[in-house]
Amino acid sequence: MLTVFGSTALDTIRTPDKILKDVLGGAATFAGVSASFFVKTGLIAVVGTDFPKKYHNTLKKYLDLEGLAIHKGKTFRYDGSYDKTLSTRTTNKTELNVLGSFEPIVPEKYRKSQFVYLANNDPDQNTKIIREFDNVKFSMCDTIEFWINSKRNSVIKMIGSVDAVVINDEEAKLLTKEHNLIKCAKKMMGWGAKYVIIKKGEHGSLLFFDDVIFPSVAFSLEDIVDPTGAGDSFAGAMIGYLASKNSTSLSEIKKAVVYGNVMGSFAVEKYGLDGLTNTTKAKIQNRIKKYQSMIDF
Amino acid sequence: MLTVFGSTALDTIRTPDKILKDVLGGAATFAGVSASFFVKTGLIAVVGTDFPKKYHNTLKKYLDLEGLAIHKGKTFRYDGSYDKTLSTRTTNKTELNVLGSFEPIVPEKYRKSQFVYLANNDPDQNTKIIREFDNVKFSMCDTIEFWINSKRNSVIKMIGSVDAVVINDEEAKLLTKEHNLIKCAKKMMGWGAKYVIIKKGEHGSLLFFDDVIFPSVAFSLEDIVDPTGAGDSFAGAMIGYLASKNSTSLSEIKKAVVYGNVMGSFAVEKYGLDGLTNTTKAKIQNRIKKYQSMIDF
Repeated sequence: MLTVFGSTALDTIRTPDKILKDVLGGAATFAGVSASFFVKTGLIAVVGTDFPKKYHNTLKKYLDLEGLAIHKGKTFRYDGSYDKTLSTRTTNKTELNVLGSFEPIVPEKYRKSQFVYLANNDPDQNTKIIREFDNVKFSMCDTIEFWINSKRNSVIKMIGSVDAVVINDEEAKLLTKEHNLIKCAKKMMGWGAKYVIIKKGEHGSLLFFDDVIFPSVAFSLEDIVDPTGAGDSFAGAMIGYLASKNSTSLSEIKKAVVYGNVMGSFAVEKYGLDGLTNTTKAKIQNRIKKYQSMIDF
Repeated sequence: MLTVFGSTALDTIRTPDKILKDVLGGAATFAGVSASFFVKTGLIAVVGTDFPKKYHNTLKKYLDLEGLAIHKGKTFRYDGSYDKTLSTRTTNKTELNVLGSFEPIVPEKYRKSQFVYLANNDPDQNTKIIREFDNVKFSMCDTIEFWINSKRNSVIKMIGSVDAVVINDEEAKLLTKEHNLIKCAKKMMGWGAKYVIIKKGEHGSLLFFDDVIFPSVAFSLEDIVDPTGAGDSFAGAMIGYLASKNSTSLSEIKKAVVYGNVMGSFAVEKYGLDGLTNTTKAKIQNRIKKYQSMIDF
């Protein structure tokens, strides 16, 4: 089993072509739903009493919700706008609401999870919660600019407490104060992460382990409508795939990255969570085949 | 035989760690020297009477110089500064000098070249000169922001007169007025190019042909000292490899792109032309092997 700890949100997403108001989002939502195509996935998150029933049903369809707390008050809300190239997002508003005072509790049955994904939460919370799992084989965390700027030392400590860090390129540079991504990764490995995965959006990703570098391209897409959740979907697919194989061999981790690229490509093709909820295991396998033939030379 | 038409320059390159003054550079220099590792390459270019003997000897070591004109006056000079990340270059000064009035002449023996590379020259000159080759099997051109801004229609016409365009991502977007690189490539193919290769620097490249997209990663490097000429080295290697195979099959073109990535990686490892002049055929083959094992999963 895989456990995912992170945010479930009501997102307002403004793209050049469409505005989505209060749609189901959040890092753990994307990561969890993405992972659920590979393995049974439990969610640790919180929503408010205003959280729509239909979204609860969506989550229930993909995830074990024993770890989902429903607290009195409003659900965490995020409002962001993309520029016309869809490459830059500006945050208009963040309302923490019930997320602000959330103290995550790991349900008894989740404690045995051998695979644990800690989304871009407060790094101190991530560092603390990972200790509550009894038998972790592979843990992976993400982080974001907000925590790097406000709690850099806690982020570094968190990186030392997990097996793998998945982080985007700009945040890796900000965190490590390096320009070259290999140097960024080496620094994070020096802080204790065994594996570092740097996400580069449309340019794919770089996986680092010891002296191994595994660069992989993104699945090329002509029509991208909403990049929200692509990185979370990437990470969820990675750890979901590994959990399904119950393996942490380098060879499987490389394959996991490829699944990450493919699930990220589904995420950006449709608005909000629709890219993931409209896919199927068969479509995923088909795209993996296309990916392989695309890069073959 | 391959013919390369383009600029030979005396470059002043300012990087965070070192300033190079009046070193051998220019698009055709990098492309030609890179290509010369694969095939006999003739250079069509002009230098001034001030062009140092030692640089003439360097060129002579790698290239057939029957097409190199030496005109009274000063050699084309370029002066540019990189920022601390080495990802942005600012032009401080461009002195066209003898290049300003240069009318290229194709030597008789070059006319039979089946492979022709037209560097980022005046697009009208490129369109004109390609007609002087009797038996072209594969022609490829590059272009830069300066021509896109000053002679966009000529650039489009040039693209219609060659088999392949190699262009960097920002310039592809500027030229086509599209944001998505697949859309950029389709537009350029609509203008008549059979193959489009979009260079993305450290993120590798995308090759387009009909409905085929071949994305490839760059060879990962930790220590990059001078990105000057990387794109030209990429292009030179591509067409040099193809000329050496006397083939334009899609399968060979994909391999040519991989050689392009590898030669680009040599170019950026050392200052100026040193990355190319310090490599050998054995080192290239070795890096190709490393590239293959790096991306294997």
